[in-house]
Amino acid sequence: MSKHTPIQSVQYRGDHLLLLDQHELPHKTDFVRIETTEQLWNAIHALQVRGAPAIGIAAAFGLSLWANQQKEESDLRTFVHQLKIQRNYLSSARPTAVNLCWALDRVVQSIQLAETVQDAIQLMEIEALTIQREDETTCQQIGEYALSLFQPGDRILTICNPGSIATARYGTALAAFYLAQERGVPLSVYACETRPLLQGSRLTTWELQQAGVDVTLITDNMAAHTIRIKNISAIIVGCDRIAANGDTANKIGTFGLALQAKALGIPFYVASPLSTIDLDTPTGECIPIEERHPEEVTHLAGKRIAPEGVRVYNPAFDVTPHEYISAIITEQGIIFGNYREKLAMVKNQMNLLIS
Amino acid sequence: MSKHTPIQSVQYRGDHLLLLDQHELPHKTDFVRIETTEQLWNAIHALQVRGAPAIGIAAAFGLSLWANQQKEESDLRTFVHQLKIQRNYLSSARPTAVNLCWALDRVVQSIQLAETVQDAIQLMEIEALTIQREDETTCQQIGEYALSLFQPGDRILTICNPGSIATARYGTALAAFYLAQERGVPLSVYACETRPLLQGSRLTTWELQQAGVDVTLITDNMAAHTIRIKNISAIIVGCDRIAANGDTANKIGTFGLALQAKALGIPFYVASPLSTIDLDTPTGECIPIEERHPEEVTHLAGKRIAPEGVRVYNPAFDVTPHEYISAIITEQGIIFGNYREKLAMVKNQMNLLIS
Repeated sequence: MSKHTPIQSVQYRGDHLLLLDQHELPHKTDFVRIETTEQLWNAIHALQVRGAPAIGIAAAFGLSLWANQQKEESDLRTFVHQLKIQRNYLSSARPTAVNLCWALDRVVQSIQLAETVQDAIQLMEIEALTIQREDETTCQQIGEYALSLFQPGDRILTICNPGSIATARYGTALAAFYLAQERGVPLSVYACETRPLLQGSRLTTWELQQAGVDVTLITDNMAAHTIRIKNISAIIVGCDRIAANGDTANKIGTFGLALQAKALGIPFYVASPLSTIDLDTPTGECIPIEERHPEEVTHLAGKRIAPEGVRVYNPAFDVTPHEYISAIITEQGIIFGNYREKLAMVKNQMNLLIS
Repeated sequence: MSKHTPIQSVQYRGDHLLLLDQHELPHKTDFVRIETTEQLWNAIHALQVRGAPAIGIAAAFGLSLWANQQKEESDLRTFVHQLKIQRNYLSSARPTAVNLCWALDRVVQSIQLAETVQDAIQLMEIEALTIQREDETTCQQIGEYALSLFQPGDRILTICNPGSIATARYGTALAAFYLAQERGVPLSVYACETRPLLQGSRLTTWELQQAGVDVTLITDNMAAHTIRIKNISAIIVGCDRIAANGDTANKIGTFGLALQAKALGIPFYVASPLSTIDLDTPTGECIPIEERHPEEVTHLAGKRIAPEGVRVYNPAFDVTPHEYISAIITEQGIIFGNYREKLAMVKNQMNLLIS
C-alpha cells in the first residue's frame, strides 16, 4: 500500500539522455548514455528503449539533444531544414509506433513562433519536457478509468510491457494495477511472457513485483487454459497504433488473445493515450507491420534453440480488428464501440486543445 | 520426393533400451541407455522420451526389460505380483498421457495364457514389439486419412511435436506431411515453437527439415496473425488423451489454437491413434492436468529469463472441448462430430479386434 516510485526509463540531462537498458532487465538496471540522434536511432531500433509512449518521449528529447548541439548555428532556416532531416531520420527507427512520429512532430511544430535558433532550441526543450510530464498525467488518468472497470479480487491478464518503464510513469495497461496497489485494492495480474523478446517475463513481472503487485507469469500459449482455470475477469493490453476505425496494432500475440477473450466471454480492453490514435490510418490493414530478424526466434540468451537454417516468420506486431475490442480506455474516458465516430471526436478535441 | 528414413526414438535391445535424448535436439543426436524401470521412469518424467505413442512404446519395452531380468524367478504368481508393481510404478511417470497406461496394460494382459515365467517373459517381449510395429502402421493410416483433408499447396499450422520421434514412425499429426513429401505433394507447415519446452522449434522443425518438408517456425503467440496473413488452411495437432465425449487433452496451447481456428473460420483437426481414446474418462474435466516445475518457464538453456522469486503457473497440457474440434483423425477413419457415439463404436471395435 506504500506509494511506489519506479525507475524512470527516459531521463533528460540537457547534453545527454539516460535510457534504462531494457535488454539487461531483470538482471541489471543499467542506463545507456545517448549523445547523438544516431545513438538514439540505434537504441530505439534495438529496443533498448521500448513502449510507444517512452519511444515518443525519447525521440522528443533526441531532437532537443540535437538542437542543444546547434548553438553555433545562426540561420533559423538552415536549422529548421536540418531539424526536419533529423526528424525524418528518427521517425524511421520503428515503423509501427505512431507515437514516435506524433512526438517528433510536436517538437518540430513547437518552434513555429521562434524568431531565432536560440528561441527554437529553448522551445523544443520545453516541448519535450512537456510531452514527458503530460504522459505521466495521461497514464494516471488511463489507470483511473481502467480501474473503474475492475472489481476487487479480479484477475486480469496482459501481454508485453505496457508498464511504467514503457511510459513516463504508471504505464498504460498496467496503470490500474499501480493505482490499485496504492489504494490497497486487491487485483491479480497474469503476465504472458511475450515471445520472442520476453517483455512480459523480463519487464512486466519485474516492475510489478518491485511495486508489490500480485503477478503470476505464464507462457503465451497458456492464456486460454489460464482464463478458464483461474477465472480471469478481463484482458487489458497497450497498443502501438489505433486506426481511425478502432483496429489496433500491438505486440504480436494481442490479436490471438482478443479472439480467445471473445470465445471465452471475457472483455478485452485496449489502454491507450490519445496520441496513439492515428486518424490518418483508416483501418488496421494500412498499418505497416514490422518484421524482425529470425534470430530473435531461433536464439535465446545467445543460445540457438532451433535447427540451423530453419525458415522463420517473425512479425513484431499484429492487428486486432475493432470488433474484438470491448473498450478503448483513454485519458479522456472509456470508449465502448462506435470507434470511428468517437475516436475522431475525442482526437479532434485533443488537437484543438494542443493547437 | 526421396523416401525418408527417420531416426527411431525408442530402440529395444533385449537387455537395454536406447532412447533418443530429445533434450539434446536439435544440437546433438545422442541416445540414453536404459536398463531399469527406475531409469525409464526418470527418462519419461524428464521428457527425454516424449509423445504419447512413444511413451507407450517405451513403457511396454520397460516392462519387457524388467521381465528379462526375472529369469531366475520360478513362481509365476510372484512374477505377476511384481509385474503389477512395476506397471503401477511406470504408469505414474506422467499423469496425462493415457497411452502409457494403455501400453502397460496390454503387456500385462499379454501373459494371461502363460503357464510359466519363461512363457510370460516371451509373451511380454512379443507384445511390446507388436505395440511398436502396430504404431508405425497406425501412424501411416492416420497420415493417409489426414492427407485426404488437405489440398496441394495448403499451409497447415501445428504445435508441439506430434512427429516421427514421438511415435514408432511418421508421427500422428505430422504423418500427412511425410506421406505428402514421399509423393511430391506440396504442403507447407507452420510450426509453433511450443513454450516452455520448445518441442516445436527443437523437434518438429528438425525432423521435418531432415525430411525436406517445407517448414516455417513461429512463436506460439504469432498463430492468429499467421493464420490471417499466410492464409493457413487448417490446424492439425496430436493429443495425449481423448475423453469419451471428444474433449481432448494435448500440449498447453492447443486449446487457444482451437479457439483461434474457430474464430478465423479454419478447421481444427486432432490426429490420434485409437489408443489415445479413453472411454473411462467421460469428459475433459476428468483429465488430470500435470503442472510442472516453474523453472521450465523462468529459465531457458540454463539462463534465468524472469526475475528471482516470480510466481509461475505452468500447466503442461490443456483440454480442448469437443465443440471446437472439426474432426478426429484415427487409423480407422475420420470422425466428424457426434464424438460420444462414434468414439465408443470405433473404440469397442478395436478392443474386440485386440482381445
